[in-house]
This record gives sequence, structure tokens and C-alpha cells, in this order.
Amino acid sequence: MSDGKIILAPIGYVRTDVAGDEVKDKSLSSKIVVNINLVEGLEGISGFSHLFVLFWLNQIKEEQRLMMKVHPRGKPDLPLTGVFAVRTMLRPNPIGLTLVKLIAVEGNVLTVKGLDAYDGTPVLDIKPFDPWDIAENPKVPDWWLNLEGDRK
Amino acid sequence: MSDGKIILAPIGYVRTDVAGDEVKDKSLSSKIVVNINLVEGLEGISGFSHLFVLFWLNQIKEEQRLMMKVHPRGKPDLPLTGVFAVRTMLRPNPIGLTLVKLIAVEGNVLTVKGLDAYDGTPVLDIKPFDPWDIAENPKVPDWWLNLEGDRK
Repeated sequence: MSDGKIILAPIGYVRTDVAGDEVKDKSLSSKIVVNINLVEGLEGISGFSHLFVLFWLNQIKEEQRLMMKVHPRGKPDLPLTGVFAVRTMLRPNPIGLTLVKLIAVEGNVLTVKGLDAYDGTPVLDIKPFDPWDIAENPKVPDWWLNLEGDRK
Repeated sequence: MSDGKIILAPIGYVRTDVAGDEVKDKSLSSKIVVNINLVEGLEGISGFSHLFVLFWLNQIKEEQRLMMKVHPRGKPDLPLTGVFAVRTMLRPNPIGLTLVKLIAVEGNVLTVKGLDAYDGTPVLDIKPFDPWDIAENPKVPDWWLNLEGDRK
């Protein structure tokens, strides 16, 4: 077991023309520019339709990593909920995880749809979506279901 | 944009009685012991049936993070494939991602099923599975489909 710090370096960066909350629009495409020295790591990726992208939420400040409860989606009428029970950006290790659709691969640049990350976001990892990642009959709390209507 | 190093600390550790490849047996349960100072972050998690667990593959050595291609599942008859197109542990940022079933929550201890991580593995994050994480009609390469039979 290692109790030491864990040190990561970006494998690339997100590029998008839109800013602010518009990045949450799942119909938009953005690009992942992978560091050129890692381009061989993309070989064979075009055989997959969907990818998980892990990215570093670099706008989160140190003190925001100490919060343990939030109102889901910032809605004060929803109960304070533990950060591990929501997908908030405020987490001890602010890593974003998003399932995206792979549209195109050109050299070290992936075009993807549905990546809700800001321009310049450091990317930590890219993993192919696997049928094992499908939850059968997933159960979520009622408040979660009620938020579905808010999504674009 | 931050070009600096990204520093993480474990939020907890995996506990399992089995060792070696047996951890890949998806029918087995294991525990995630969350650091006691983060226990409030679990509030509300029992409303979900499935979680994504992000964990640090601490058995991977520095030099193994430089590999860009591997034979999927170590099978030499399968073509060398980029690390971002397989779920190998050998990756520039060796973060594991596994969908697990949440069985029980007792204080700071989660019992989960399907977590293919060794005893003592540092856990980086826990996120609830969301219907948004479902890929519709996911496409995978033929070699990937042919491996399905190997899985327990």
C-alpha cells in the first residue's frame, strides 16, 4: 500500500469554441488534443463508438476539495448530499468522468460529442467503453430522476 | 490551463480477502474503507444501485507508464493496440475505472460487488452511476467481442 501522494500529468487538453455552461450541451462536439508523444496510444481507438474521458477539474480550488456535502446541481430545495453521491465538480480529488461519442480521429486529435469540459481542461485518461460498463436496471434516488428534465 | 503536476491523495482503500487474478471474479464482494474524515461525503449514496470507482493502480511502475501499445489482455495473437484503446493497467496515468454494484453502506465502509482491485488499492473517487453513462448501441472492435468468452 502506498500512502504517498499520487502525481499525474495531463495526457492532453480539451479544445472547444464554447464557454461557460454551454459546454454542458451534449449535442456539441469538442476536441481532445493528445500530447504528440502519446499518439501511438490511440492506435485502434477508432474501433470504438464510445469512450470514457477522465479529466482534471482545474478550476476547483484547494478549499473546495474539502467540502463534503452539496445541494445537487446547486438547487437549495434539494437535500444536502454527500459529494460521493453526486457528480459535482467539488470533490476531494476533482476528476471529471464523462461518456462521449467518438466522432473522428485525426493524428493526435479526437473529435468527440458530449464532453462537458471547458476549453483547456487537462485530460488524464481515455478508456474505451466496454459492455461491462453497462449497469443493469440502475437505481437512482427520486431527486436524481426529477432532475432529468433539466438536462439538455 | 495548468501545465503543472496534478497531486491526489487517496480517499480510502480497497479491502478484499482474495489475491491475485481472483480479484477479477465479478461475482465476489469487496469493501471500500473510506477515510473517516470523509464519511459525510457518503450521505445519500445508498440511494444508488451502481457506482463508478476510480482507483490508483499502485503496482504499476514508472517505466510501465511509458508504454504506448500492448497486446490486449496480454495475448500475443491479438494485434498491438494503443493503451487508450484498451483497459490495460499500463497507462500514462494508471487510474482504474470499474462499475460496481453497491451492496451495503455501514458508516465509512461500502460493500461492493465486481471491483477488480487488489487489497490495499488506493481509491481516488466514487461517483454514482447515472443514466447518462449508458452508451446507446456501443460499437467495439471484433477482437474485443471475441474476448468476452474469457471473462468470468
